[in-house]
Amino acid sequence: MTGPDPTWALDFAHMLADAARPIALRYFRSGVRVEDKPGQEFDPVTAADREIETRLRAVLREHRPLDGVLGEEYPPCPSRNGWVWVIDPIDGTRAFIAGAPTWCVLIALQVDDAPLVSVIDQPFTGERFSGVHQTRAWLDHKDKRQALSCRAGACTLDQALIATTDPALFTPVEADAFGDLARQARIRRYGMDCYAYAALAMGGVDLVVESGLKPWDVAALIPVVTGAGGLITNWRGEPAPGGGRVLAAATPQLHAEAVARLSQVTG
Amino acid sequence: MTGPDPTWALDFAHMLADAARPIALRYFRSGVRVEDKPGQEFDPVTAADREIETRLRAVLREHRPLDGVLGEEYPPCPSRNGWVWVIDPIDGTRAFIAGAPTWCVLIALQVDDAPLVSVIDQPFTGERFSGVHQTRAWLDHKDKRQALSCRAGACTLDQALIATTDPALFTPVEADAFGDLARQARIRRYGMDCYAYAALAMGGVDLVVESGLKPWDVAALIPVVTGAGGLITNWRGEPAPGGGRVLAAATPQLHAEAVARLSQVTG
Repeated sequence: MTGPDPTWALDFAHMLADAARPIALRYFRSGVRVEDKPGQEFDPVTAADREIETRLRAVLREHRPLDGVLGEEYPPCPSRNGWVWVIDPIDGTRAFIAGAPTWCVLIALQVDDAPLVSVIDQPFTGERFSGVHQTRAWLDHKDKRQALSCRAGACTLDQALIATTDPALFTPVEADAFGDLARQARIRRYGMDCYAYAALAMGGVDLVVESGLKPWDVAALIPVVTGAGGLITNWRGEPAPGGGRVLAAATPQLHAEAVARLSQVTG
Repeated sequence: MTGPDPTWALDFAHMLADAARPIALRYFRSGVRVEDKPGQEFDPVTAADREIETRLRAVLREHRPLDGVLGEEYPPCPSRNGWVWVIDPIDGTRAFIAGAPTWCVLIALQVDDAPLVSVIDQPFTGERFSGVHQTRAWLDHKDKRQALSCRAGACTLDQALIATTDPALFTPVEADAFGDLARQARIRRYGMDCYAYAALAMGGVDLVVESGLKPWDVAALIPVVTGAGGLITNWRGEPAPGGGRVLAAATPQLHAEAVARLSQVTG
């Protein structure tokens, strides 16, 4: 096993996102057929999801045969070198179905279970967010690249914009804790999915609180958020590369205020 | 007073939207200062809001001195010919502040209090939705124009995607009625603001239910929704050009199902 070069790895992640983009755009607003996963509450799986993941796995098999793959749609492919690509072909499937441009293609590389680089791509707006864990993050849009940074300076909870996807996705005890936090925030915002974390990295959103995330929902968020100077952990303030209850904050102060309220949720 | 030519009126609305677009883009994600309106629950007013409305009122004063103007930011200007331009310079201010591309510039023309034409413009994605009341609606995007139409064919409530901006904006009795309806829908979706109505006109969203809308929130939605074959009324199924409790539906069947549940809300 050789140490990873983040620049090379991020270039490779961009190449994967380039391969996904035309497939996603071909299906977006095309009246794509939606299936339920058997035995689950409604969870849309689009043809785009499957075709993108199939395509990215084929690229990885060809160019990175020793790397593992963890994706939403198909069984994991074990890693033989400690590198694992984590893929959510369409995160925000409900936004995709509704025709709203807040879904994204999520691609991350973890090395020995630690986040390294990631891309959050929004093919319709042409926005591509990318990051190197705890180092830098960028937005590429219309042939321009800008460095991303979370809101600078102090931000108290009563000045904060807090986002979550759907308050009905929380368990009752989670909903109580979120409600306690959200009532003290300046603005509450729903329905942004993964785009909320990109907005946090751009300085628009100050806190994102979600639960029930899968590993492929969260992996690509981490390098972008931390690369832009933000924090992303579970509700107890611990690393959360596997998903679950996820909290992202623009500043350490907001993070501490949120953890103080959310960490009491157990079970 | 002469009868209006919808084609001319829609061209004029497009020209107003052209004037608004660069102002909106200049402020979007610029760290714009936000003020509270005194004496109200939080209601963000951005510099973009004021600069756009000031600009559009100046254009109207110059070219349409007899027309009235009803806008969010400044006092109404009475009409001397029955024509009234209804303007919400930035609808979805919270989305604007968060950095999400679901806010829009809303411009409508009402003649003798009846909807005639409108534009729903999203400057960041470059999407411009427009419509002639109960006639036609279009999406202009990247130099292409497509006719809009709501979901074709039958759609039962349990197949429908239902959208609202924020369930916490409802009164308790409204929330109960919305919850009763939304629980029977296939997918619930939050946070789309005015973009939800554009998504309905594109066939992605099937029902939109909101309350507390102002006249400038709703006026531009009506020609786009009805021009795409949809219905937009209050919760009792009556015309709602003044806002309040608004319901938009892709099909008459869905509209009837929603009215059956929502019309019982009084007070």
